[in-house]
Amino acid sequence: MATQIDGKATSLKIQEELAEQVEKIKKEGGKIPHLAAVLVGDDGASLTYVNAKVKACERIGYGSTLVHLPEVTTEEALLEKVKELNENDDIDGFIVQVPLPDHIDEQKVVEAISPKKDVDGFHPINMGNMLLGLPGFVPATPKGIMMLLERYDIETSGKHCVVMGRSHTVGTPVSILMSRKATPGNATVTVVHSRTKDIPSITRQADILIVALGQREFVTADMVKEGAVVVDVGIHRVPAPEKKSGFRLRGDVKFDEVAEKASFITPVPGGVGPMTIAALLYNTMLAAKNEK
Amino acid sequence: MATQIDGKATSLKIQEELAEQVEKIKKEGGKIPHLAAVLVGDDGASLTYVNAKVKACERIGYGSTLVHLPEVTTEEALLEKVKELNENDDIDGFIVQVPLPDHIDEQKVVEAISPKKDVDGFHPINMGNMLLGLPGFVPATPKGIMMLLERYDIETSGKHCVVMGRSHTVGTPVSILMSRKATPGNATVTVVHSRTKDIPSITRQADILIVALGQREFVTADMVKEGAVVVDVGIHRVPAPEKKSGFRLRGDVKFDEVAEKASFITPVPGGVGPMTIAALLYNTMLAAKNEK
Repeated sequence: MATQIDGKATSLKIQEELAEQVEKIKKEGGKIPHLAAVLVGDDGASLTYVNAKVKACERIGYGSTLVHLPEVTTEEALLEKVKELNENDDIDGFIVQVPLPDHIDEQKVVEAISPKKDVDGFHPINMGNMLLGLPGFVPATPKGIMMLLERYDIETSGKHCVVMGRSHTVGTPVSILMSRKATPGNATVTVVHSRTKDIPSITRQADILIVALGQREFVTADMVKEGAVVVDVGIHRVPAPEKKSGFRLRGDVKFDEVAEKASFITPVPGGVGPMTIAALLYNTMLAAKNEK
Repeated sequence: MATQIDGKATSLKIQEELAEQVEKIKKEGGKIPHLAAVLVGDDGASLTYVNAKVKACERIGYGSTLVHLPEVTTEEALLEKVKELNENDDIDGFIVQVPLPDHIDEQKVVEAISPKKDVDGFHPINMGNMLLGLPGFVPATPKGIMMLLERYDIETSGKHCVVMGRSHTVGTPVSILMSRKATPGNATVTVVHSRTKDIPSITRQADILIVALGQREFVTADMVKEGAVVVDVGIHRVPAPEKKSGFRLRGDVKFDEVAEKASFITPVPGGVGPMTIAALLYNTMLAAKNEK
């Protein structure tokens, strides 16, 4: 039976460490990190995410600003707001919550964010810096996965890591981080995706399996090697009338059966999910210290 | 016995096509592409490379400028020259030949080049654009490899491609290009490197093997699957007193024995090498048309 990787506890631990750093900065009279979040419209899920980020900032002593703009905000007005945040010296980093309304070009907005304040790490220059092994912001989910592997002392060097999914936000960046000459890293990395033939024959070779496919409970026990480390990035709502919320969460991995075979496994919820906020707050500290 | 992939002929074919485009632009009274190359110092090999690039420009009707600066040029003066080229509307693209003298920070120079004129594709923003599947310049060697696969109608979708080497200029970018949702592309990609355990067990799975390790004749027949496509990026000089030049060239692949097993193979010389110039000229055309 696998050891469950506790993403929630790890995230809180990292947030505690950041809070201690804030205390130290305060004592030394330095600049307290300040994160701003821009939300356009009133999408329920987005509002929840953004509020969680703002609350986490407050909890650990960061400054935080929520910029809530109406759904009808024009692209021009949003770009103007981004410019304002770029120029505001009190704001160390900021994010623009996606998805944006259809009338706004997301990529244009991302590229308008100053790379030095782009704590989401989605600006092409931060992606390029990651690829080149240069300092920069690493997107929250890949960063959170690397932090989990590090905190659980999981050896990655020389291991075969199979990444399922090639998205720009998770699969592709995490494949680069796992392959590069660093710790964690130095793994032999294979990326599989929708066009891959015979996925199980490849996933069964994985010492470390990172699943970011977006398909509910796709990975079954027969696809996993005995003793593998399994990281599940998926998150899906499944109707559950018996629950107060009316749903329960599932990942891309069939947890119960895969947990029987794996050495380590991240649950859903409570695995990778809570780490993204720790990674975002970590990036904001780097931005404040100008150390990204 | 494998079909030899003729990089020299393919490169010349692409250059011919570019020359035809130049003719067409001339007739229409458009802007003729203009490439500039900056060389600092008198390194023999660098001088040869840069001259070859300038000559290729002349042959296909591009404008070309060689900026030859003395070895003692300061970083500041070089950055000033880069700025000048960035601002010169007649220059569509330019390269700064590496290696630079030790007193100059190469990365600083690369980042000073306007991404719109960075036809070598080494600027982080171009690397990031490649990772994100956005328009941008792809570095010459990976681009040249993709062009070869395309011109030889080699199916990549759903194939297992093993990339040997994780360099920023070849291995990592080519792994992204082979994996991404495009043609050529859509391959299942594994990157192996110096920390990989049991390399042959992985390379023997490759339908397409791209070798960019920088180790002379490392890949032997027993490491290759029957019928694989083998692309050799390595280039090494081996003393050969019987030759006028005093040396012969070898790649990262033991050509004679691997050619017995492969379906397609690139020779050294005459394989990937000549393609880099075609890719550079291709990028310069994109820059001139502002279509990168």
